[in-house]
Amino acid sequence: MTSLFRPALSKMLPYTPGEQSAPGKVIKLNTNENPYPPCPAVVKAIQEAATGNINRYPDPMATAFRHAAADALGLPGPEWVLAGNGSDEILTMLVRGFVGEGEKLRLPYPSYILYRTLADIQGASWEQVPFNDDWKLAAEFGETSDKLKLVLLPNPNSPSGTIVDQEEVAAIANSLDCPLVVDEAYVDFANQNCLELVQQNERVMVTRTLSKSYGLAGVRFGFLIAQPQIIANLAKIKDSYNCDAISIAAATAAMSSQDWLKDVVAKLNATRARMETKLTELGFHVTPSHANFVWCQHPDGNHQSRYEYLKANQILVRYMQFPDWGDGLRISVGTDDQIDACLMMLERFS
Amino acid sequence: MTSLFRPALSKMLPYTPGEQSAPGKVIKLNTNENPYPPCPAVVKAIQEAATGNINRYPDPMATAFRHAAADALGLPGPEWVLAGNGSDEILTMLVRGFVGEGEKLRLPYPSYILYRTLADIQGASWEQVPFNDDWKLAAEFGETSDKLKLVLLPNPNSPSGTIVDQEEVAAIANSLDCPLVVDEAYVDFANQNCLELVQQNERVMVTRTLSKSYGLAGVRFGFLIAQPQIIANLAKIKDSYNCDAISIAAATAAMSSQDWLKDVVAKLNATRARMETKLTELGFHVTPSHANFVWCQHPDGNHQSRYEYLKANQILVRYMQFPDWGDGLRISVGTDDQIDACLMMLERFS
Repeated sequence: MTSLFRPALSKMLPYTPGEQSAPGKVIKLNTNENPYPPCPAVVKAIQEAATGNINRYPDPMATAFRHAAADALGLPGPEWVLAGNGSDEILTMLVRGFVGEGEKLRLPYPSYILYRTLADIQGASWEQVPFNDDWKLAAEFGETSDKLKLVLLPNPNSPSGTIVDQEEVAAIANSLDCPLVVDEAYVDFANQNCLELVQQNERVMVTRTLSKSYGLAGVRFGFLIAQPQIIANLAKIKDSYNCDAISIAAATAAMSSQDWLKDVVAKLNATRARMETKLTELGFHVTPSHANFVWCQHPDGNHQSRYEYLKANQILVRYMQFPDWGDGLRISVGTDDQIDACLMMLERFS
Repeated sequence: MTSLFRPALSKMLPYTPGEQSAPGKVIKLNTNENPYPPCPAVVKAIQEAATGNINRYPDPMATAFRHAAADALGLPGPEWVLAGNGSDEILTMLVRGFVGEGEKLRLPYPSYILYRTLADIQGASWEQVPFNDDWKLAAEFGETSDKLKLVLLPNPNSPSGTIVDQEEVAAIANSLDCPLVVDEAYVDFANQNCLELVQQNERVMVTRTLSKSYGLAGVRFGFLIAQPQIIANLAKIKDSYNCDAISIAAATAAMSSQDWLKDVVAKLNATRARMETKLTELGFHVTPSHANFVWCQHPDGNHQSRYEYLKANQILVRYMQFPDWGDGLRISVGTDDQIDACLMMLERFS
């Protein structure tokens, strides 16, 4: 690496997102996308925006979206919402906002390793606190420490699909003296969330994405829900025009389509239940999921060979291996046909 | 400001972009947008992308765009190009890549004050080297110093619209030991650029945007041209999916429409020449422009009152005031009708 770069970057490894594939050729169950096309109102909004004023800069604060999100989620007002170019950008802003060089962030283990990359880029350190065997959090997760400036909790978690109860999250937040960010990328597939806690404690912040439940991974839109004084200060860090006019139009239409969301989530959760039953029948240990994927481990431990067998048969799932913890398969909830094909191949393997 | 944030952020002021206005009501000549709609091929690409796989994550490296850009600009290959969510994001990556907390970046004065904000966010410092009276750069601009990790040169510059010759830029780059980023946001309106220097010196990097000449400010797309080893390392800093599927499709179509670009630039440059002549007749001192705006100063010094007079008459231009240097009006090149209206009001004022 050329010596022009900051030393913190020379030793870091980049985050590697899930494999992409040419559309149509492969059944893609590896990056937790929604297998269904987005709401027709969203497609219409994009096509209208294309002939709008795209030669003009977009609204820097995505005002229309903030209103739609506040309405859909029952927030006190749009000033509780900050829009971002995917929740990845929101997470980047949070790390840049709260964690300086030489400071520290905390995450549970196993969970979303992107958080570690964000710390590395910032020249900060990270510490991982293992989940208990029942996927609850050890008391250690809520302990304060001198350099600790940010705690990140994916909830529901990946790869496990498990969820930590709102009461437990509240207790952690209250014992910490730094922000606790609850990453709710998958929360629309669960039966609870932490929005209430945001109103009770300025140190609780919730991130959301339109990439999963709303079927808009290609559009890059995520947002933060936090108290207005937090939003106002974080906005200083963001690029002036971080969301484009077309994605603002798409995201606004998506948030205004809560009936569509309810339907698609019901459909995916029904498929998930079927996956859980069948995988259990096939001898897998299945962790009950609150997300649009299922984490499963087979007693024979042949996870990597199953991953490769599926891939050879044009089915892409995620093989994940966590040092000192274990490995398994994370299978996104697809359409019923896709999941039938996947389950059939897994049956054939065993 | 709540004490949860990094200290570097508590003292900084946010960057304030130019005023926005509801479309249609106002003649907007304040943020250097292209007044013409984008190429029809771009609109078509967006509308097609809307019904494509937007439920799937986009290509993390925007491969199609990189090929189109390399072809259009005669670069050795796509690995010389890094795509970003506007050139703002590219500039953010560059500052994060090269400048650590407590280190320093340099910019000329007066120029683009966003660079200072980016240093502030990073907890770094910035120093400004004044342009000479003839808009050339003082030797000081090329001097090395211990903490100096990045030098930024908007070329053509804003607010002046002036350009520093390629030979002069090469000499500065050779005397520095840190990267020199040439921000060529406006270069399509000029008659030279610094792409050749990138191939000669790994410390020279060029940023471009589709917001100005291509008429796509609403789409947020910019890119970096640098040597492949620089691009590969900077890619580690970017969000995994920093450009969305729709803007990649739009930007790829735009880069493949070089004939359209040539025509719209010729039209705008003809309008610019007319603006320069008429403003001179109206008694302004006009700095000859190589960009899609004109910087003008009137001997009577009544710039702010002209700005307000125009605004009261539904014409928005940029009043800019640079401490220890002076003030003036920066007027974007609009359509002929828009410029006629603006010039008529300025004539009426005087």
